[in-house]
Amino acid sequence: MPDFFKGSGDPQQLQQGWDILAEQVSLPVAVLRQDALQQNAHWMAQFAQQNNVLLAPHGKTTMSPELFKYQQGMGAWAITVATVPQLICAVEAGIKRVILANQLVGRYHFELVANLLKSAPLELFCFVDSIDNVHALGDFFNQQEVKVNLLLEIGVVGGRCGVRNFAELTSLIKACHAYPSLQIVGLGFYEGIIGGEHAEQDVERFVESVIMYAEQLHQQGMFACSEPIVSGAGSAWYDVVTKVMKHSAHTCEFKFVIRPGCYLIHDTGIYHNAQQAILKRSEAACGIEGELVSSLFIWAYVTSLPEPGFAIVGMGKRDVAFDAGLPKPEYHYGTYCKRLQSLNSDFYTEKIMDQHAMLRLPPNHLLKVGDMICFSTSHPCLTFDKWKHIGIVERDWVITKTITTHF
Amino acid sequence: MPDFFKGSGDPQQLQQGWDILAEQVSLPVAVLRQDALQQNAHWMAQFAQQNNVLLAPHGKTTMSPELFKYQQGMGAWAITVATVPQLICAVEAGIKRVILANQLVGRYHFELVANLLKSAPLELFCFVDSIDNVHALGDFFNQQEVKVNLLLEIGVVGGRCGVRNFAELTSLIKACHAYPSLQIVGLGFYEGIIGGEHAEQDVERFVESVIMYAEQLHQQGMFACSEPIVSGAGSAWYDVVTKVMKHSAHTCEFKFVIRPGCYLIHDTGIYHNAQQAILKRSEAACGIEGELVSSLFIWAYVTSLPEPGFAIVGMGKRDVAFDAGLPKPEYHYGTYCKRLQSLNSDFYTEKIMDQHAMLRLPPNHLLKVGDMICFSTSHPCLTFDKWKHIGIVERDWVITKTITTHF
Repeated sequence: MPDFFKGSGDPQQLQQGWDILAEQVSLPVAVLRQDALQQNAHWMAQFAQQNNVLLAPHGKTTMSPELFKYQQGMGAWAITVATVPQLICAVEAGIKRVILANQLVGRYHFELVANLLKSAPLELFCFVDSIDNVHALGDFFNQQEVKVNLLLEIGVVGGRCGVRNFAELTSLIKACHAYPSLQIVGLGFYEGIIGGEHAEQDVERFVESVIMYAEQLHQQGMFACSEPIVSGAGSAWYDVVTKVMKHSAHTCEFKFVIRPGCYLIHDTGIYHNAQQAILKRSEAACGIEGELVSSLFIWAYVTSLPEPGFAIVGMGKRDVAFDAGLPKPEYHYGTYCKRLQSLNSDFYTEKIMDQHAMLRLPPNHLLKVGDMICFSTSHPCLTFDKWKHIGIVERDWVITKTITTHF
Repeated sequence: MPDFFKGSGDPQQLQQGWDILAEQVSLPVAVLRQDALQQNAHWMAQFAQQNNVLLAPHGKTTMSPELFKYQQGMGAWAITVATVPQLICAVEAGIKRVILANQLVGRYHFELVANLLKSAPLELFCFVDSIDNVHALGDFFNQQEVKVNLLLEIGVVGGRCGVRNFAELTSLIKACHAYPSLQIVGLGFYEGIIGGEHAEQDVERFVESVIMYAEQLHQQGMFACSEPIVSGAGSAWYDVVTKVMKHSAHTCEFKFVIRPGCYLIHDTGIYHNAQQAILKRSEAACGIEGELVSSLFIWAYVTSLPEPGFAIVGMGKRDVAFDAGLPKPEYHYGTYCKRLQSLNSDFYTEKIMDQHAMLRLPPNHLLKVGDMICFSTSHPCLTFDKWKHIGIVERDWVITKTITTHF
């Protein structure tokens, strides 16, 4: 049996569509609303265009070649990835410009990257933040006679990767200059690690300092290109990063590249909240027509109603993200009465186990065992990596095509 | 490129083995120690045999056909699963006796199960706990002229699935009796949901009540077989469940079946702790030679050392379970000095993100960017579902074969 939807869905039927409500697929099933995908892709393309930044969506969210291609078609300048296998997936999908927003580490990875650079018309940018890594990269790629584009990573103190100050940055550059194979073409950063009460100001100041570094280095002729890249921004602060990029008093030319990953899928949890905060503080975001909407849904069966106001649903940690809020029941479909109804907040997920979710229900609920519940999610990345195939649906919940994921 | 290890490992090389320490695979990589698997499988087989219970390991933990077959070869009476796609996977692996320790719900699932029962020599047992589900099953399987073996599920109040008292159980049985296709062959339960200060006594009492119900029903001739099944036990309380099964004052014959899922892989977190508690309280467990050991490890690169005593490792929520304790650094391999060393508890994982883990290190650590760290894990189920292929290694960390997973 082909491996559709964790074992379900007869591929012979797909031409006519797989009707979820008519029980033509195995539940749980993960689906994306076509209209929501379009709306989200369009929204972010508009945002980038109107603010003169280039969009390199982080592909780690979906790891779906079909969605990489779609994002490219909607104007993305590059696709961002976090690992070498992810890079290979993007290249195999036909993506020609990729940011590896992470350190390139390990001999086996060096070999894979060298092979890619020799065999494909690929413009690749890698982050680097340590002198040991510079030596390892330089020794290897000098021997291979392959040039590697580097973005020097600047990090937040107490944060993640990246050098913490200008002195370290200068040492890193010196180390790079010993290797003709290593081309410094810009700076990279990730501000998403910044939190706390003054997060917005801290993000602003951090991005300002990165641009100041970039300006200084550019004036000193430290970059191997005339228009170096400055790249940052995850899904929570892309507006602040963009604002600083736009308004920083830089005298040199830069390519400003943002890398949000979750906008295409979005959610009704952490990224919904982040986007609401963005709309509150950002004129640029408010100026874009429409809004981001959650495109990802999981349908699952009610498998047990063992106590009043309490349902067990056949969906668990194996099927949906649970690290940043539990899935939210949105619709109930009565398989006996054939009726689809929205659920209000009296219905909520109380707990989740590996293969089950526990729901609390109001006293007057109409759920029966064998009915279906449709959930929205929080943190799309950790739902996507649970599925090898995800259905694309129209508003009638009929799957008309499928996309693959490659985790 | 074939999809080994998230994009790594040249399949041409496998005959000679893939040497992790010689950087012949992409990291992160998940591997199982062959010797630990053997030891664990043997330990639990001994436990079941010496205590006169049948072993139906929960396959949801690994979802690996190769491991299902291995468990069967080591004396498992059946394989347990949680969903219909998991059932299909087990049957395709050649398993002939399966417990679906969950409600069978949904027309598409009914069809899949009917096809399996018609086409394969399969002994299948399904849980049931609701009258609506009995009607749905009975209507469908009567029409198909296929018989389904049911285990009536007894649940814990405030817990998960299962009827909560004998009156509900009696109604459920009455409903079943209207359908010749439905054969009641025993009772099923899951005690793992019980917690709190008096968990051990509560588990004992719960299992006692289930066996009392079984006894009563058996005497009333409610089962469709002479030796009905009573099945329970996850990985945390199998000793207590077994003890009650062994010592309950039952006058009728039963097949007692336990369903632990995590013993084969084990861990250094929640199931290590659970097993330590078992060894403290259970004479039967102490009587078994050897012990359960953690067999699953993740190797990952040190990608950044941005601050003193702080390392970033290329392994994240996409690679390892994080819901029941973070992965524990066990070994450091210096790729420059070619030295493998055990790590003590001064090295620990502080935080994990989608693709990164943050480690705290003692001041005198010897880590360099490009070195490798080997982690043990907590909660094997949620590490397994991150990998399509897992390597089997000997003590020298050379992968000699691979197994597949089917999530």
